[in-house]
Amino acid sequence: MTTSPRIDRARLLGRLETFNRIGALPGGGNCRLALSDEDRAGRDLLVRWMGELGLAVTIDAIGNIIGVRRGRSEELAPVMFGSHVDTVGTGGRYDGLYGVLAGLEVCEALSDASVATRRPLALVAFTNEEGSRFAPYAMGSLVYVGGLALGDAYAIRGIDGATVGAELRRIGYVGKAKPGWLKPHAYLELHIEQGPILEDEGLVIAAVEAIAGLAWTEVTATGRSGHAGTTPMHLRHDAAHIAGEIAVFVRRLACEIGGHQKGTVGRIELYPNLVNVIAERAVLTVDLRNTDAAQLQRAERALAACLDQLAARENVSISTRGLAHFAPVTFPAEIVSLVEATARELGLPCRRLPSGAGHDAQMMARICPTGMIFVPSIGGLSHNVREDTKPEHLEAGAAVLMRAAMRLAD
Amino acid sequence: MTTSPRIDRARLLGRLETFNRIGALPGGGNCRLALSDEDRAGRDLLVRWMGELGLAVTIDAIGNIIGVRRGRSEELAPVMFGSHVDTVGTGGRYDGLYGVLAGLEVCEALSDASVATRRPLALVAFTNEEGSRFAPYAMGSLVYVGGLALGDAYAIRGIDGATVGAELRRIGYVGKAKPGWLKPHAYLELHIEQGPILEDEGLVIAAVEAIAGLAWTEVTATGRSGHAGTTPMHLRHDAAHIAGEIAVFVRRLACEIGGHQKGTVGRIELYPNLVNVIAERAVLTVDLRNTDAAQLQRAERALAACLDQLAARENVSISTRGLAHFAPVTFPAEIVSLVEATARELGLPCRRLPSGAGHDAQMMARICPTGMIFVPSIGGLSHNVREDTKPEHLEAGAAVLMRAAMRLAD
Repeated sequence: MTTSPRIDRARLLGRLETFNRIGALPGGGNCRLALSDEDRAGRDLLVRWMGELGLAVTIDAIGNIIGVRRGRSEELAPVMFGSHVDTVGTGGRYDGLYGVLAGLEVCEALSDASVATRRPLALVAFTNEEGSRFAPYAMGSLVYVGGLALGDAYAIRGIDGATVGAELRRIGYVGKAKPGWLKPHAYLELHIEQGPILEDEGLVIAAVEAIAGLAWTEVTATGRSGHAGTTPMHLRHDAAHIAGEIAVFVRRLACEIGGHQKGTVGRIELYPNLVNVIAERAVLTVDLRNTDAAQLQRAERALAACLDQLAARENVSISTRGLAHFAPVTFPAEIVSLVEATARELGLPCRRLPSGAGHDAQMMARICPTGMIFVPSIGGLSHNVREDTKPEHLEAGAAVLMRAAMRLAD
Repeated sequence: MTTSPRIDRARLLGRLETFNRIGALPGGGNCRLALSDEDRAGRDLLVRWMGELGLAVTIDAIGNIIGVRRGRSEELAPVMFGSHVDTVGTGGRYDGLYGVLAGLEVCEALSDASVATRRPLALVAFTNEEGSRFAPYAMGSLVYVGGLALGDAYAIRGIDGATVGAELRRIGYVGKAKPGWLKPHAYLELHIEQGPILEDEGLVIAAVEAIAGLAWTEVTATGRSGHAGTTPMHLRHDAAHIAGEIAVFVRRLACEIGGHQKGTVGRIELYPNLVNVIAERAVLTVDLRNTDAAQLQRAERALAACLDQLAARENVSISTRGLAHFAPVTFPAEIVSLVEATARELGLPCRRLPSGAGHDAQMMARICPTGMIFVPSIGGLSHNVREDTKPEHLEAGAAVLMRAAMRLAD
């Protein structure tokens, strides 16, 4: 006899709390950079919990972890949901992890209520969603959908010089399964908003309708080092000054284009990086995003023109390397409507929203109907150790995920 | 019987060549950061060479190395000359080292010619002139003249977290002598110009008349980290953007003030320094210099005003820490004239010049009549692995040093 399944808030919060002891930073927040020792410890715990709930766990060759809960019709494609468990260097408690552990809670709530869905359910934790250590981001899901060859992914070198392949082997997460082995009927991802809009408008749920496109560019400016006290200002070829000009330009560009355009210089490294030496070389990253493909292209062209002008004016050599490039993604209307309808049934105030952040759902949309559910971020903070979401909102999001997944699976 | 002493160009070049195998960088140039293993190896070689020439070597408590050549009147204060043997991270072959090894060649040339000067001669290699690892620069000479207490110098922490005291002990250069133990009659420093003027004008020698004053400031901007894709542009408190604004401002400021004003941002460090995270914190250095004290103060005030404006406009916290602050120094006319006259006697085209770079001579001027001799830098390059000076110019500078020192010592 089945009862109506119910999310257990305390259990969900308890698992989040326990998991977040891994890679906890002294002042709060978490650091579980992809394929680090902390990432491994998190993966080990997740695999154990999946096993304890009776999910059949499979690791694929890029390290994605999938736990399958049986359905009444085993031959049907499963409804997949999940997210990732890695973090940025100064990450919060819920970015990624919430979607995975809420998925685990959904499985346990269904089992507690003895619910067997028609289609199997598949809970996934994708490898290296953040991309902070190894670009591009969403690497595990990108390989899963065939957008990046496994060998190419293994060869990618991170900011610390290590490769994806070597680090995957080191932490013991090169599985035997071929990425993409399980083709889903649909994919749902529950995530924190990571922005301020739901909180500002007093809403609890967003049905995500699109994901911004993105271009990550690594810029290397090579000038000429020299003595800071003797080199006349007009004879300088100062790579640090170039880095400064680019940081100022990117900000102005994003503000000028307006709308959903974002622009960020998050990384700058100078060489030799000494107080009394004009910098010979600067390596920096530019992150441009927009939900509007044409505006994103406009921003990319403007950046390229700026770099050309700086190189000519300052007589420095500037080269670029694309780290990631993804077009905007629009989710199918039926999934967006399903999320909206589910939230309304549960009495949760909801709106449609585009996502400025990239997600694994962006890749999964290439192989199956895909959608996302957002819950509010307090103060809109994310990629920040003070990232937070109210417990009742964490519970509400999990409830929407459960109802929407049940509907897709039946 | 004495003959006329003569600089042996091949011997001087040979010693420079041998010494520069220590800390040689793969693509050319040298790295012997102060109190590093490479600095120790260089010191050991210098002490050995001083001993082989019969100089009486004394190490003082800040690691300055002084080798004394006897004079006919032992009770008189010696004529001191020298420079330093440490380098910046991407240093050239002659910055500092030339002045020390030319001094060694002067001693050997005098001995070859059986010349005994009336006053003793003292060859010095001062500790940590560059200041790249431990600020302030010219630390050894500053302690020597009583401008920095020994205990305060020992406590200074470098860019790698090590302290001066611990590193001095580690490399075995905490000597027993009290810094300042030997009060010179006069101090001469032979150095490469590190700028383009002598070469541009086809000259061989500069009689240095002044040294620019300098203010080194470490700026820390603390904003708020956040997600590069979701944080609206107008809600950002982006420390990397602040660093960029400061780099652009410092360049514009120096160009606007003009004259001998220099301004350099040589070091920028972001935290967490990741492509998709708005930087929470930026630490950078600003190096301002001018031979005109009033203009230097004007530049410092303008920088402070800029930081205040940025902090207010971007709602970030900006703090500063002074790393070094020295007023401009003017050398006494009689020493400048002596250098000029000596160059003319040797038939070497010469001019007067202020120095944009700081030197140990700047500190020594506090305790005795002091002067400097410059030789040309090819392309004006310095603090650069391609720093170079023609062999005939290296010889010419050593000859001027020898003649000027002999005149002061007799």
